[in-house]
Amino acid sequence: MKIALDAMGGDFAPAETVGGAIQAAREYQIDLILVGDRPVLESELAKHRADGLSLEIVHADDVIRMGEQAVQSVRSRPQSSIVVGTRLVHEGRAAAIVSAGHSGAAMAAALFVLGRIHGVERPALSILFPGERGWSLVLDVGANVDCRPEYLTQFALMGSAYAEHVLGIGRPRVGLLSNGEEDTKGNQLTRRAHQLLREQPLHFIGNVEGRDLPMGAADVVVCDGFVGNVALKTAEGVAECILRCLRDEIGKSWRFRLAAGLLRPAFRQVKRRMDYEEYGGSPLLGVNGAVIVAHGRSRAKAIKNALRMAREAALSPVIDVIRRSVESLPATSGVTASDGGVSTES
Amino acid sequence: MKIALDAMGGDFAPAETVGGAIQAAREYQIDLILVGDRPVLESELAKHRADGLSLEIVHADDVIRMGEQAVQSVRSRPQSSIVVGTRLVHEGRAAAIVSAGHSGAAMAAALFVLGRIHGVERPALSILFPGERGWSLVLDVGANVDCRPEYLTQFALMGSAYAEHVLGIGRPRVGLLSNGEEDTKGNQLTRRAHQLLREQPLHFIGNVEGRDLPMGAADVVVCDGFVGNVALKTAEGVAECILRCLRDEIGKSWRFRLAAGLLRPAFRQVKRRMDYEEYGGSPLLGVNGAVIVAHGRSRAKAIKNALRMAREAALSPVIDVIRRSVESLPATSGVTASDGGVSTES
Repeated sequence: MKIALDAMGGDFAPAETVGGAIQAAREYQIDLILVGDRPVLESELAKHRADGLSLEIVHADDVIRMGEQAVQSVRSRPQSSIVVGTRLVHEGRAAAIVSAGHSGAAMAAALFVLGRIHGVERPALSILFPGERGWSLVLDVGANVDCRPEYLTQFALMGSAYAEHVLGIGRPRVGLLSNGEEDTKGNQLTRRAHQLLREQPLHFIGNVEGRDLPMGAADVVVCDGFVGNVALKTAEGVAECILRCLRDEIGKSWRFRLAAGLLRPAFRQVKRRMDYEEYGGSPLLGVNGAVIVAHGRSRAKAIKNALRMAREAALSPVIDVIRRSVESLPATSGVTASDGGVSTES
Repeated sequence: MKIALDAMGGDFAPAETVGGAIQAAREYQIDLILVGDRPVLESELAKHRADGLSLEIVHADDVIRMGEQAVQSVRSRPQSSIVVGTRLVHEGRAAAIVSAGHSGAAMAAALFVLGRIHGVERPALSILFPGERGWSLVLDVGANVDCRPEYLTQFALMGSAYAEHVLGIGRPRVGLLSNGEEDTKGNQLTRRAHQLLREQPLHFIGNVEGRDLPMGAADVVVCDGFVGNVALKTAEGVAECILRCLRDEIGKSWRFRLAAGLLRPAFRQVKRRMDYEEYGGSPLLGVNGAVIVAHGRSRAKAIKNALRMAREAALSPVIDVIRRSVESLPATSGVTASDGGVSTES
């Protein structure tokens, strides 16, 4: 089983993507296909000791850069690394793909090349949200900014399947992100979704609030992509801000600096518990293939972890489980196949 | 000028509300009216040295408790402390009211007793979001979970007026909370609101993301109340979680505990920069009177700061400024006066 990596995608590609690939190949014995400009990747690989590792290059001479229009670029540039890599999955030459490049482009490529799982109305981008008691899988975090209640139901089924079959959580607790815990709280979208979720074969624990995200109150948290994106980025911003404030204050006296030096292992541990690099990537759920979208700022470690996650997803039956669970849903009125697709603006 | 305090409202009322009132009267020479059960408040006051302070009691023998249905309770219980206190403002006996009780009830009371400022479609609850470079006023954070684009425009005008005339920020930067900085990002609501905001006499800086909230990228950030509530609570949760994780890790060795002892002033400073108690309350904007909704978990310090904020709001021309700025807006089609009102479920 081979895992494809969009080696040209990401703020620190190709140095960190290739670095991460080497680590994943060495530490986890993953067989890899690096997709990208062959001469560039060869010269990057030459900087490492890669003998004995299973690293193949598939050439792609184009890259879709951040800020470019996603759908249009994916449609018109078949030689871009993300499209070439996704095609490897479609053709069965790779079992999964990881990209830290333009996330909209990765989603669009997945949608056009792999297609949606039969019955899935909207694929969703999920992330593992770090918390005190482990991680929560939150979806959607940006693929679908305007949702119908039925989409949230599907997100819940997909997230629950992923949590169980890839993350190994038995009977995952599913929460609905809302502005209060009471059943009556919510906006039009979530109040209706709440009712629908009650009817599903899920371990639905009801509404959860923003503060429950870092507490790990649920294993899977569903929301529309706009809200999920705001919550995720707020959390990232607050965490960074606190650590920066702390650094500021510590810098103010030599006594603080000394004490902080002694505390470094504790600080590192906290940072580690909060660090997106530890999980490395966000599964795109609902497409016919394992697609992991890594953070644009991924360093080698994040890439390595995303590759490991991609292999776990590829080895799991999650796509079949999702197919079976959405098949049993009643059809949504007014949603047609042509209406489908993630919102993939830049 | 007297400021009314719902002395029975809040998780730690009346001990902490009365304590905060005493502090405010002493430190800021605020003339106060404590609203609530007279015997209870008198015995609470007797625990303090309050001689020479301007503290009056207005009796109210009922309290609307957390979890009760807001609108119904406010309508049917005219003797509840929040309704009595709000009536004092309406009658001109108090210039402002502060409550740490049921926030939905405080909003409903403001709406029924004081009414909306002419032209305001939806009053909004705002908070001061702590950040690295000071505070951002974020609104709405829960009063209106489903919004039209026009409401966000009004939130922006109201928030900008408050930031300028109460917080003293010249030409406040106004941002629209979205899932990306580019103008094209957003959901249906915010994409339309973005266009409307461009046409207003505001210093509109465009979309801001969740991560910009703690960075203080804008002085005023507008969003619908659902998104604002999720963002606010996520931020609170993450901050608490990080500090708790840090405490956990520090507890693991005596060396860490020793070093942390030396760092205590730095930790305290960080906590202070992130602490809602420093500002104490959330102005409810768009009603005919100064209403400050304090956190349910407010301790005396938060109450004190909320009372100071209430006085600043009452002294400012913010209501007139809001009236003039919304008057100049074109009428929204399809919104009638009877459609008005904040969502005030529990």
